[in-house]
Amino acid sequence: MNHFKESCGVFGLYGHPDASKLTYLGLYALQHRGQESAGIVSYDGDKTYEYVNMGLVSEVFNEECLNRLKGYLAIGHVRYSTTGPSILRNVQPFLVHHLGKSFAIAHNGNLINAYALRKKLEEEGAIFQSTMDSEIIMHLWLKYLHLGLEEALLKALSQLKGAYSLLLMTDDTLIAARDPFGFRPLCLGRKGDTLFVASETCALDLVEAEYIRDIEPGEILFIDKNGLRSIKMPTDKHAYCVFELIYFSRPDSYIFGKNVYLFRKEQGHQLAKEAFIEGDFVMPLPDSGNYVALGYAEATKMPFEMGMIRNHYVGRTFIQPSSSMRGLSARIKLNPVKALLKGKRIIILEDSIVRGTTSRSRIKALREIGVKEIHLLISCPPHRFPCFYGIDFPSPGELIAASKSIEEIRDFLGLDSLHYLSLEGLLSIGIDPNKFCLACFTGDYPITPERSFSKRWLER
Amino acid sequence: MNHFKESCGVFGLYGHPDASKLTYLGLYALQHRGQESAGIVSYDGDKTYEYVNMGLVSEVFNEECLNRLKGYLAIGHVRYSTTGPSILRNVQPFLVHHLGKSFAIAHNGNLINAYALRKKLEEEGAIFQSTMDSEIIMHLWLKYLHLGLEEALLKALSQLKGAYSLLLMTDDTLIAARDPFGFRPLCLGRKGDTLFVASETCALDLVEAEYIRDIEPGEILFIDKNGLRSIKMPTDKHAYCVFELIYFSRPDSYIFGKNVYLFRKEQGHQLAKEAFIEGDFVMPLPDSGNYVALGYAEATKMPFEMGMIRNHYVGRTFIQPSSSMRGLSARIKLNPVKALLKGKRIIILEDSIVRGTTSRSRIKALREIGVKEIHLLISCPPHRFPCFYGIDFPSPGELIAASKSIEEIRDFLGLDSLHYLSLEGLLSIGIDPNKFCLACFTGDYPITPERSFSKRWLER
Amino acid sequence: MNHFKESCGVFGLYGHPDASKLTYLGLYALQHRGQESAGIVSYDGDKTYEYVNMGLVSEVFNEECLNRLKGYLAIGHVRYSTTGPSILRNVQPFLVHHLGKSFAIAHNGNLINAYALRKKLEEEGAIFQSTMDSEIIMHLWLKYLHLGLEEALLKALSQLKGAYSLLLMTDDTLIAARDPFGFRPLCLGRKGDTLFVASETCALDLVEAEYIRDIEPGEILFIDKNGLRSIKMPTDKHAYCVFELIYFSRPDSYIFGKNVYLFRKEQGHQLAKEAFIEGDFVMPLPDSGNYVALGYAEATKMPFEMGMIRNHYVGRTFIQPSSSMRGLSARIKLNPVKALLKGKRIIILEDSIVRGTTSRSRIKALREIGVKEIHLLISCPPHRFPCFYGIDFPSPGELIAASKSIEEIRDFLGLDSLHYLSLEGLLSIGIDPNKFCLACFTGDYPITPERSFSKRWLER
Amino acid sequence: MNHFKESCGVFGLYGHPDASKLTYLGLYALQHRGQESAGIVSYDGDKTYEYVNMGLVSEVFNEECLNRLKGYLAIGHVRYSTTGPSILRNVQPFLVHHLGKSFAIAHNGNLINAYALRKKLEEEGAIFQSTMDSEIIMHLWLKYLHLGLEEALLKALSQLKGAYSLLLMTDDTLIAARDPFGFRPLCLGRKGDTLFVASETCALDLVEAEYIRDIEPGEILFIDKNGLRSIKMPTDKHAYCVFELIYFSRPDSYIFGKNVYLFRKEQGHQLAKEAFIEGDFVMPLPDSGNYVALGYAEATKMPFEMGMIRNHYVGRTFIQPSSSMRGLSARIKLNPVKALLKGKRIIILEDSIVRGTTSRSRIKALREIGVKEIHLLISCPPHRFPCFYGIDFPSPGELIAASKSIEEIRDFLGLDSLHYLSLEGLLSIGIDPNKFCLACFTGDYPITPERSFSKRWLER
Repeated sequence: MNHFKESCGVFGLYGHPDASKLTYLGLYALQHRGQESAGIVSYDGDKTYEYVNMGLVSEVFNEECLNRLKGYLAIGHVRYSTTGPSILRNVQPFLVHHLGKSFAIAHNGNLINAYALRKKLEEEGAIFQSTMDSEIIMHLWLKYLHLGLEEALLKALSQLKGAYSLLLMTDDTLIAARDPFGFRPLCLGRKGDTLFVASETCALDLVEAEYIRDIEPGEILFIDKNGLRSIKMPTDKHAYCVFELIYFSRPDSYIFGKNVYLFRKEQGHQLAKEAFIEGDFVMPLPDSGNYVALGYAEATKMPFEMGMIRNHYVGRTFIQPSSSMRGLSARIKLNPVKALLKGKRIIILEDSIVRGTTSRSRIKALREIGVKEIHLLISCPPHRFPCFYGIDFPSPGELIAASKSIEEIRDFLGLDSLHYLSLEGLLSIGIDPNKFCLACFTGDYPITPERSFSKRWLER
Repeated sequence: MNHFKESCGVFGLYGHPDASKLTYLGLYALQHRGQESAGIVSYDGDKTYEYVNMGLVSEVFNEECLNRLKGYLAIGHVRYSTTGPSILRNVQPFLVHHLGKSFAIAHNGNLINAYALRKKLEEEGAIFQSTMDSEIIMHLWLKYLHLGLEEALLKALSQLKGAYSLLLMTDDTLIAARDPFGFRPLCLGRKGDTLFVASETCALDLVEAEYIRDIEPGEILFIDKNGLRSIKMPTDKHAYCVFELIYFSRPDSYIFGKNVYLFRKEQGHQLAKEAFIEGDFVMPLPDSGNYVALGYAEATKMPFEMGMIRNHYVGRTFIQPSSSMRGLSARIKLNPVKALLKGKRIIILEDSIVRGTTSRSRIKALREIGVKEIHLLISCPPHRFPCFYGIDFPSPGELIAASKSIEEIRDFLGLDSLHYLSLEGLLSIGIDPNKFCLACFTGDYPITPERSFSKRWLER
Repeated sequence: MNHFKESCGVFGLYGHPDASKLTYLGLYALQHRGQESAGIVSYDGDKTYEYVNMGLVSEVFNEECLNRLKGYLAIGHVRYSTTGPSILRNVQPFLVHHLGKSFAIAHNGNLINAYALRKKLEEEGAIFQSTMDSEIIMHLWLKYLHLGLEEALLKALSQLKGAYSLLLMTDDTLIAARDPFGFRPLCLGRKGDTLFVASETCALDLVEAEYIRDIEPGEILFIDKNGLRSIKMPTDKHAYCVFELIYFSRPDSYIFGKNVYLFRKEQGHQLAKEAFIEGDFVMPLPDSGNYVALGYAEATKMPFEMGMIRNHYVGRTFIQPSSSMRGLSARIKLNPVKALLKGKRIIILEDSIVRGTTSRSRIKALREIGVKEIHLLISCPPHRFPCFYGIDFPSPGELIAASKSIEEIRDFLGLDSLHYLSLEGLLSIGIDPNKFCLACFTGDYPITPERSFSKRWLER
Repeated sequence: MNHFKESCGVFGLYGHPDASKLTYLGLYALQHRGQESAGIVSYDGDKTYEYVNMGLVSEVFNEECLNRLKGYLAIGHVRYSTTGPSILRNVQPFLVHHLGKSFAIAHNGNLINAYALRKKLEEEGAIFQSTMDSEIIMHLWLKYLHLGLEEALLKALSQLKGAYSLLLMTDDTLIAARDPFGFRPLCLGRKGDTLFVASETCALDLVEAEYIRDIEPGEILFIDKNGLRSIKMPTDKHAYCVFELIYFSRPDSYIFGKNVYLFRKEQGHQLAKEAFIEGDFVMPLPDSGNYVALGYAEATKMPFEMGMIRNHYVGRTFIQPSSSMRGLSARIKLNPVKALLKGKRIIILEDSIVRGTTSRSRIKALREIGVKEIHLLISCPPHRFPCFYGIDFPSPGELIAASKSIEEIRDFLGLDSLHYLSLEGLLSIGIDPNKFCLACFTGDYPITPERSFSKRWLER
């Protein structure tokens, strides 16, 4: 289910005459990381071109505007943006022209010292038009530009605290940077002489590029006509977002060195060890529970079924009849297959429970068609703590596991049994606590966030 | 894969104050049966209301236009329409006002004597504005109206040859009719005092109506304030479209008395008997091969995997780079999971091969990422003959199985092996040849079509 | 002021490879005759093409759709359509394909026996999809088609009562017809080998065609590859709509043999004879009062001023502040020039008063900026009777002159004096009562209308 | 004719609960000053609201977005913007949030030291996202903000060279400022307790506000809950743009203390003294020649006619037939009245000749319909020099009078005679050369412009 909102996906390349069209394809493959706006900035050796708008990649771009985005160098961005009337100001990539050159930034992640940085920059005279982190990064970048491109970026980025996987572009150079903790993924690919940087490897697949390696935590990688060169910021421990593996990333991607599909199957194997339940069959909540359910069925040798049918044509909204129909919004997306489910003991695999309300109405619907027993298995520990590094969780008050025990949740959802994967179980399948951020489960934050933002101050 | 185009889905109801909003929901559930246009006609005891347009149900209707569609009686239609500039004239339901009354028709199916009927009607003075069968049916209906509603419909429908599942509406009456062969499905449901008619039971599920029975082949069912009454046309053998079960209908629907999900699993079971192949795992081409693959895996006790990842955000078109990228249009929809597939012997389940071009490029893509063996199993016999009853097959010249042997197809697709479910196998799992139309496999047509349409004459 | 709604403008041509683009230009010039929808049908010797939509000519057509409207023969239509959700069905030209041929109609005017004709046709089995007169004409045309093209049209048109200036097209023939009374204008033009028919000569000017003559009342003119030929229906007296000259037609057009601009100046001359008033200057209400004001000023040798400034950017609607602002809707279109008007005695020329409400608020606004005396002169007699031949007057209850004396109207409007041109005055400047319809002034109708339509019956 | 492009119109008010709707009306009245984009920023005592978009005022705003623009304080802007893909970035008002406060600017005019100011600011670290002067003014304003609001503005504005009539808004204060030369108009109005500032008085008329006085050259006027207070920048001579009176402003406005309508009539009177020509009548090119033609006819006692009919429905573009039609784009806007003009000696009044190409094709069209003599009178001296203060003249190479003598222009246009109002004549009707900028006629610039912009540097 789509209960979390990721901020962004980024994609860029150097060295192909069709740079903007390849970027468009890359964004197509990353669409799951952000559906509200999309943009591309390109450079043809002489001029910089830009096109951004609200909407899906397939809605924002047409042949004509891609043809106008000339050049061999391009960066692009998809965003799950905040709402509000000035939303168009917050579309990325963020592009400025400064002292005769152009500078563009595409950002995935979330800074935790944005308030302090912006306040300081404003006190020094900087003017902000948006509420985006990338505008802050731009100000810092240009502030140190007189030190030279590499030094300027080192100095600018070293002031940032939080999560960032960045694509930057200035005239003839494509730059990729990843914060020292490496919260968000960022990978390098190649096809012939063209070099690519993308949030996920599935975007490399689509453009037929070969995956080379990840941009390392703390790495700033420069790509230009002379090829690749890297500088490094000092790093300590890493803090890869475990939720990229569990939920966000596409199953066909490699993330943090792991294939997402196979990792999720391993979660299912581990769950089978921790919670073997007698039932007639295993089924996922599509699509996020698919792979963990496959793993669980494989390990337990229980039958696997796909008992909920997804309607692929559900739009962003639909209209309710005046007379209330319970659970309609859940049912319109996923309809249970009565003929299969009636009288059965079923084991459902899901990746998370956030508020619990949608799950509750789905379980009720299953009861109404006569399912005999319903057991729910969650492929990670309970989400108890907010994320400050780019995942838009509900507030702690809305996270059901922040206030209820597992037994209370089971009761609230109307289940016969409920099991979460244990933290130990998660660690046992390759999640090194020194490399991964587990703060949403443990509350143990790799970097302490600054005091909560003065919302009034930042928002328009 | 979506290689076939079905003409339509219909939905209607009598006796609920929110008739048009429920119809909108019903069409939402039937969206897979037609994505190019949608329309609703409603009646509030005094006036008739109409709204039709091009687009998906979620695009065509908004709160305001549903509120204007007042009444307790409504019929709706989704259509996979033909192309062309005058396309808007062909949107259904088809509504006219005649001698102080209103008449509306929503049609699923295809008449095979449309040319002759239209020619005769034109010679008698009738004027046609569209190329729809429903305009022909309307002319016949009104021609005999002086005989009374029931007699008029009996007389009109008895002249039709071919496939039709119809919803008709005239002022205070909802009428459902199905041709004597029963080619297309049509079912009756109830919730409280409200009676529903729908192409598939999944639409009843969404509005929480209970499935009562199918409209019978040759039945004309009248629903009004006095309840239900039926008249029957003479029927001989039935000819249910087997492809509704194999491909078109939603797996959560009951069609011709069978649950589609379970039927498809049985196809898998039967395939396992006919063609047991050694492999590392079984996987479907999503979504149409899903259930037959589950059945095959279950019967063979082989692992089931989901090795192709579907991009849910693919729009109606996408823009190709100038430099050609082979297989891009296949890859943008489904990306193979390299980590899973490399070096493996895989068994792919699919529901049909039409032209073979898309399959060929998918198989090539699998070879390129290092799949070791690829075996393809098709859940029905080869498609060798066109359909005249509402399924828009390519011309025989484009149907690969019409001109190539299975071995030639295997070679063309680059497979290690290729197996089709045998006709006997299909009959053995409940497909009675006296009840089902199998013409696309056998060329044995229940009704002989008239000589091919003078396209020039009909089209604008 | 735009207080009346005309139904339509028509334009067509035979014999130019750019037929649809020239028709588009002709419609552009006739846009004042209808602003709600536009359409063109063309023929290229083989196929018939069609494009219609809601909106202004500049909004409906683009380069691409005009390029698709191929051919050397085309007819077009602009319409001031009725409102309602099914409005798209009423867009013209009206096109059908019948017995292998195509037939199109564009109609300006209004039939008074539409109800009876439609009822009779429906009883004979005809089916109507719109509420347009042109659908009735189409049914009659095709009903008699077996008699041959000329005889069929003679027989069909002879059953029509009321006003019609028609363009018809069937495959290779353009046909222009005008009712025997000649209510609405229709003229013939030529440029090289191309023949044009248009509602007004201003459309001929735009395409650089030379005006040849009017289509005569009762004439049916056929234009094809053999040139022109005419047949005639019997005619009695003529009944040209005097309001075409007074209000509707563009001043640069010749209508019924008269130049509109010069005719309106003569109205001003005659008004000067009937009502010479002492004042500081004469001014029109733009734009309809412009030419009569010029004539009045010329005859009286009084200064002419343009004391109301028109805002050319007023859209179809504008948004009112919550706090009421009196007269805003009048003021937003026309703002008085205070510096000119203050303390002055002014004589305003206008073409008509319908409800009187807008005039009243304008006069109040003039008083508030300090105009000393306001005299209003109307360029025709008072409108007391409805029109049945195509002009959408308000109902008699809303026509101020139907219930109030001139002195009462003067008092209601807050004028120092009010004068209407006398009927005798109108006759004296070339309006022959045997050639013109004056029914809106006199109630003396050339053809008696049938009993008022059963609206319920016709409307959807 | 619309041969010049003005940059902008501004409108703002303090102290009315419907501030944004009144601003919308004010912009409606100023629409002739800019048709490509429109925007409003409002403040309700707590928050700042913003809505800007491309299009006419009637297209940009709807009821819903005006309702969201809450507050008692608002400023608005209409712009004739430059072209290009990033055009949306250049829409005004320009709004930022800085150190917890909001700041907005709406600007009419053109700075001549924009390049130098921007370069200096960039070197100090400022980042620019648009190419608008208002972004430069914003940077200067905020740079000095620590000095207090008044001092900051004094210091910022004193660095600007060129033309500016500004509306600024910061939380609870509305500020109006006009450059020391007073190039562009700006006036103050009142209605009850509400104070208004507008580019022209016609906007005050529409909202029923009373005109109080102009903002003085060099004045910075603060409006807040304590009422009005002013500070002044040092001023020397004034340089009111004479073209505001001759061409741009609406005739119902007072500009620089003069009523535009009456001023234009005086131009006609003076032309009658300088160039009395024998003819049959006087006529304007609508609409810009209307009032000077009235004045000329009045002074010469010659008849006044309106011999060119304007099509009010001409869209932004129209489609040309493939076969060329000479002069179509001129003729589609204005059609000559043949019946009036044929065989006549006519005197045409116009406000300017820029390139001469449109005039030439109009004169040719008049010759073709048989006009006997054509005399053209221009209401000002020849335009020979570019404007640097906000009027978008063609380049000098395109200004016909920059390279051709009057006799050569007459010959190029095909006229019988051509007369321009003399500079002396212009001075004689109240244009004091110490108060007005006449540079486009004389080349005598009030402020020398900086060397021509490095276009490459500023543009994206």
